[in-house]
Amino acid sequence: MPERSPKVPIPSLNRLPLYYRYLLEAREQRLVVVSSEMLGDAAGVPAAQVRKDLGYLGEFGRPGIGYDVMEMQKRLAEQLGLSTQKDVIVVGAGRLGSAISAYRGFATYSMRIAALFDSDRSKIGTRVGGLEVLDVAEVGCFVQERGIQMAILAVPASMAQQVADALSQAGIAAILNFAPVKLDLPSSVVVSNEDLAARLATLSFRMIHRQE
Amino acid sequence: MPERSPKVPIPSLNRLPLYYRYLLEAREQRLVVVSSEMLGDAAGVPAAQVRKDLGYLGEFGRPGIGYDVMEMQKRLAEQLGLSTQKDVIVVGAGRLGSAISAYRGFATYSMRIAALFDSDRSKIGTRVGGLEVLDVAEVGCFVQERGIQMAILAVPASMAQQVADALSQAGIAAILNFAPVKLDLPSSVVVSNEDLAARLATLSFRMIHRQE
Repeated sequence: MPERSPKVPIPSLNRLPLYYRYLLEAREQRLVVVSSEMLGDAAGVPAAQVRKDLGYLGEFGRPGIGYDVMEMQKRLAEQLGLSTQKDVIVVGAGRLGSAISAYRGFATYSMRIAALFDSDRSKIGTRVGGLEVLDVAEVGCFVQERGIQMAILAVPASMAQQVADALSQAGIAAILNFAPVKLDLPSSVVVSNEDLAARLATLSFRMIHRQE
Repeated sequence: MPERSPKVPIPSLNRLPLYYRYLLEAREQRLVVVSSEMLGDAAGVPAAQVRKDLGYLGEFGRPGIGYDVMEMQKRLAEQLGLSTQKDVIVVGAGRLGSAISAYRGFATYSMRIAALFDSDRSKIGTRVGGLEVLDVAEVGCFVQERGIQMAILAVPASMAQQVADALSQAGIAAILNFAPVKLDLPSSVVVSNEDLAARLATLSFRMIHRQE
C-alpha cells in the first residue's frame, strides 16, 4: 500500500483511470513520452487540468518535455491499486449483474470478476459469461478464503442492505452499489452508489444548461 | 427552458438528483419544511455542503427554518428538466441494454424508457421488460417523430460511433454512453461516459487511500 495518501477531488479522481488507460495504449505504441495535451484529449479536459490532476499524486511531468510513459503508468497503477491483479465479486445474477459479469473492460485495469452469486435456486449452478452462479450463502467463506476486497452489488433494493452487511462482515472493503438504496455500513467500507436514473437526471441538467 | 444557466461543479450536480428524490419522499410524508441536515443525510454530505450545492441554483433556504419542500422540489424539477415526463431511448438490447430497459428507477425522475433498439435480426420483435425491440434502422425517424432528446447507448465499442452519429443527426441532444469509447460528436451533444471498469478503478483508489 502506498504511504502517501493524497486527497484528490472526485472529478480529478474520476479521470485517473482514463489517463491510466491512455498510458497503457501509449506503451503498446512504444511511446516514451506523452504531453499533457495528449492526456487531456484522452480525458476530454484541457492540458492545464491534466497537470493539476496528476499534480495531486506528486511531481512528474517535465515542462517542455512531458510525462515519461512507463514511470507515469507505473505510478498510476500503484495509486489505483492495480499493480497486481484484483479479484472482484458480483452479487446478483439478474440482467444487470449478468451484464457486468460478462463485461470485458475490467482487464484493462487488471481487474477480474472472480465469481457471481445469487440466492435464486433456479440460477445457482447455471453459467453466465464463463462464470458459474454460486449460492450467495457461500459468499462470506469465498471472500475470506480468497481475500477479496471489492464487490459489485446488483441485487434488488429490498435485499441490498442484508447482502451488504454480509459482505462487510466477510471483510469486503469497497462496494460498487447499483441498488437504489443508501447502504448503512461501517465507515471502513468505501461505497460508490451507481444510480442509473440519477445519472440520467444529471445528464438532463447538463443538456438543458449546456454544461460541459 | 429555465433562463438561468448556473455553472454547477460536477460533484454538486451529481447530488441534485439525490436531493430531488429526498424532497419527493418528504412530500409524500406531507413534510412542509426540511433542514439542510436532513438533505445532507440523504446525500451523504454535511449540511454546509447542501447549502452550497443548492446555493448554485439561487436563494432558497431560510436560516433557522429550512427549505420549503414544495418550492424546492418544483425548483429542482425545473433545473433538472423533470417538470414534464421525458422519454428516453435505449440502443443496444444485449445484457446491459436489457437491464437498463427493465430498470424501474427512472419513474422517480419523471423519465420513461420509450423504446429499445438493436440491429440483431434475432432480437428485433422480441420483448424485453415490456418493450418490443425495434430495428435500429428506424431510430432516426422514431427520435424525430417523438421529439426524443436523450438516448442511452449500450452497444459494443465497435458500433458506438456509428450509432452515436445517427442519433446526433436525428436530433438527440444528450447521450449516456456505456460503450468504452470516446465519442466524437458535435459540441451541441452532451455526453456522459459511463465506464464501469473505470468506476471500479476509482473505487479501488478510494479504498486504498480510504478517501470519502
